[in-house]
Amino acid sequence: MPARKIIAIGGSDAGISAALRARELDPTSEVTVVVADAYPNFSICGIPYYVSGEVTHWSNLAHRTAADLAATGMTVHTDTRATAIDTAGHRLTVTGPDGVSRDLDYDALIVGTGAVSVRPPITGLDQLGPDDGVHLLHSMDDTFAVMNTLTTTDPKTAIIIGAGYIGLEMAEGLTTRGLAVTQIEALPEVLPTVEPELGTLVHDELVRNRVDVLTNTLVTAIDRADNGDLTVTTASDGHTDHLTADLVLVVVGVRPDTDLAAAAGANLGIKNTIAVDEQMRTNLPDVFAAGDAVHTHHRQLGITWLPLGTTAHKQGRVAGENALGGTARYTGSLGTQVVKIFDLVAARTGLKEAEALTADRGWTPVSTTSTPDDHKAYYPGATPINIRITADQKTGTLLGAQLIGHRTAEIAKRIDTYATALHHGMTVEALSELDLSYTPPLGSPWDAVQIAAHNWVHEHRLHAQRSELNPNQ
Amino acid sequence: MPARKIIAIGGSDAGISAALRARELDPTSEVTVVVADAYPNFSICGIPYYVSGEVTHWSNLAHRTAADLAATGMTVHTDTRATAIDTAGHRLTVTGPDGVSRDLDYDALIVGTGAVSVRPPITGLDQLGPDDGVHLLHSMDDTFAVMNTLTTTDPKTAIIIGAGYIGLEMAEGLTTRGLAVTQIEALPEVLPTVEPELGTLVHDELVRNRVDVLTNTLVTAIDRADNGDLTVTTASDGHTDHLTADLVLVVVGVRPDTDLAAAAGANLGIKNTIAVDEQMRTNLPDVFAAGDAVHTHHRQLGITWLPLGTTAHKQGRVAGENALGGTARYTGSLGTQVVKIFDLVAARTGLKEAEALTADRGWTPVSTTSTPDDHKAYYPGATPINIRITADQKTGTLLGAQLIGHRTAEIAKRIDTYATALHHGMTVEALSELDLSYTPPLGSPWDAVQIAAHNWVHEHRLHAQRSELNPNQ
Repeated sequence: MPARKIIAIGGSDAGISAALRARELDPTSEVTVVVADAYPNFSICGIPYYVSGEVTHWSNLAHRTAADLAATGMTVHTDTRATAIDTAGHRLTVTGPDGVSRDLDYDALIVGTGAVSVRPPITGLDQLGPDDGVHLLHSMDDTFAVMNTLTTTDPKTAIIIGAGYIGLEMAEGLTTRGLAVTQIEALPEVLPTVEPELGTLVHDELVRNRVDVLTNTLVTAIDRADNGDLTVTTASDGHTDHLTADLVLVVVGVRPDTDLAAAAGANLGIKNTIAVDEQMRTNLPDVFAAGDAVHTHHRQLGITWLPLGTTAHKQGRVAGENALGGTARYTGSLGTQVVKIFDLVAARTGLKEAEALTADRGWTPVSTTSTPDDHKAYYPGATPINIRITADQKTGTLLGAQLIGHRTAEIAKRIDTYATALHHGMTVEALSELDLSYTPPLGSPWDAVQIAAHNWVHEHRLHAQRSELNPNQ
Repeated sequence: MPARKIIAIGGSDAGISAALRARELDPTSEVTVVVADAYPNFSICGIPYYVSGEVTHWSNLAHRTAADLAATGMTVHTDTRATAIDTAGHRLTVTGPDGVSRDLDYDALIVGTGAVSVRPPITGLDQLGPDDGVHLLHSMDDTFAVMNTLTTTDPKTAIIIGAGYIGLEMAEGLTTRGLAVTQIEALPEVLPTVEPELGTLVHDELVRNRVDVLTNTLVTAIDRADNGDLTVTTASDGHTDHLTADLVLVVVGVRPDTDLAAAAGANLGIKNTIAVDEQMRTNLPDVFAAGDAVHTHHRQLGITWLPLGTTAHKQGRVAGENALGGTARYTGSLGTQVVKIFDLVAARTGLKEAEALTADRGWTPVSTTSTPDDHKAYYPGATPINIRITADQKTGTLLGAQLIGHRTAEIAKRIDTYATALHHGMTVEALSELDLSYTPPLGSPWDAVQIAAHNWVHEHRLHAQRSELNPNQ
């Protein structure tokens, strides 16, 4: 049998994971990765820590070096754009760094074109760019542009439009660099992926670190004066305001980059993402897709779109295996996420109450918030964790958990316990059965994860438990 | 219906958990806890941190104060020994602090008599005690005796016989207090609950902190000279040696305290523990038992004995519910444990390879050790975690995991992810499907938990995976 030719388009999480898995499973396969820029396998999530100065050189952001990738036996074409897919001919047309177009044959193709920054409808934004100190931030090239502004114009003030993960991390990063940061969020609270009740703790942490936070505030315009000053116009509660800054960062989200796949006839689905089955197959023969460009199978919601690096890695691995003729399945996301903001860590998995309510799955989601300590209070350094558990009142099935607490409180791995429990459809009551670890410096005999579960049960199921014991009461 | 009378014997984890659960489920129940000493609901696991000075007052070791317990509506009789159970008459005989014996009626009884220190066959040990500077350590009274020696004789040197959890924590605690500590372990490596390959890392950490560690060394005798000097005689590899110290701590394990239950006719099982079913019922009518005195249902091994506070809490909760007529089940232990030793944390869940081999369950246990970083290396503070995964070669079923790493590496909660996976009988391959959290300061796109799983799969299953893809190869 001739060597199987696999091409992955995209050098980020999905494409590289697919290529690695293909090479691992079939050392005879010819695996090629086509990368539009010069930075294959870079950690986009690490950008804020390069901007902050904590990562000392941009090259450290590579998950693997070019040599590491070459050592796996894959071929990586950088600065090479995929321009057309000929699905009938099993050929991909690419343009290399020399500007020359050529065709690459494939037996199976994996589209991992990812996402691009959303450019929100702000008056004047389309007239301004990095040279003006106005930046989007999603790629390494964006990163270099931000760093160029920081080092050449030495800005003292920054406005960050958006208070999601990247916006919050950049607020920390720019503050760490010494800039005075104003963060603007259109929604009522920062970090809208968690309930406002918990988001307010993140808000407080930003303020504690001298970030000026404006919520419920829409940015309507950006102007640049002749002297270079940037003015941001905001609307909040009927009032218009004008803020000035030396640097403006627009980080309000991303949209899938699907032009190439769509032009080849790929079916698009929710939010214009590439539609795939659980084996990451598109409707096109021998064309797979994975990562931020494709819709997301969610274990609780069905099809949605939730672009995350962790998901892209998993989908890429599945696509790489199936590109070789395998039958691996992506078993679905739970939307597990974590972010560190100064000394706080916020995490979530599963659904918020409002999401569970609108999911139309017959749930009656109810929630309880607890604040157990991360470890026994008698041992130094104990700190409370805000834990909000949402579950179905009727069945007790866990639907989601959100945690916020100090960075020493092992929040990220505690959310993983909930995520693993959710993966198996556990009830909140059954969380008590888990044999979790305990030592006083690091936990409690019932871990905080279980104390929060007990509190949910106490509030929402105790009456039913009592009735089961004494049916006549 | 008259109020149901519940008595729990024992004021530690099992007894108090049972009492709390009974009061929670039936506020009309009359719940009494009989406690032999004056310290109900104390955290025995916290003793080393009181000895070290990190816990500033012994009363802080109480999980709940006497007032907290009273507020739940339970009655606690301290300094009261249970002396006989009249199962036919549903009466418990107790002797109170006044020395007077009396009977208490019960509808249901929960025996939580716990465990007592093993006194190993060391010549001279039975002639020496706290007044000589020779201590066992399991109760609050033991603790006060140790503290009395420390404060009145100001010892400069200590010998700790035993290098399990409590022995290791006491090595840290006494070192923190300024004593020069020698730790003696009969087995080939310290912390024998993990593989020697990982135990050696703990050994190194002890040495790094100037603890003198003697492994493969048996203590044969202890003598006290007239001037008060303690001499410990050791045998190792055919050689006899003599060591002196100002204080000797003997912490080689515990045995179940079952005299009361046995005298009442309770069936005893493995290692002389009280035999119970999964509802924590003994063979005696309306007599339940929970905690260190009872055998342990283990999800992988069946009946064993693994006395742990976490298990006692769970069993007590089940017993408390069933004492009211409930049908709760203790769903079993996985032996999950964690210990902090200086700046190192060691954890395990499930089985070691040797334990899985001897379990006679048809497994072919094979293991892989990996050293993934706790978080992305480009972010400051990354540190490797030693992760050893054991799983069945044929089915890929996870059998156990052991982790050792720096105390900042969130080891304790990472073992919880494995414990939750084990609870559900996951395969190592399926660990890749878990939607775990990621942010560069706290993890990796594939968490260390999953990287170790990939490495196990790569070593032990890749050949099979390749064959499935290409059956003709």
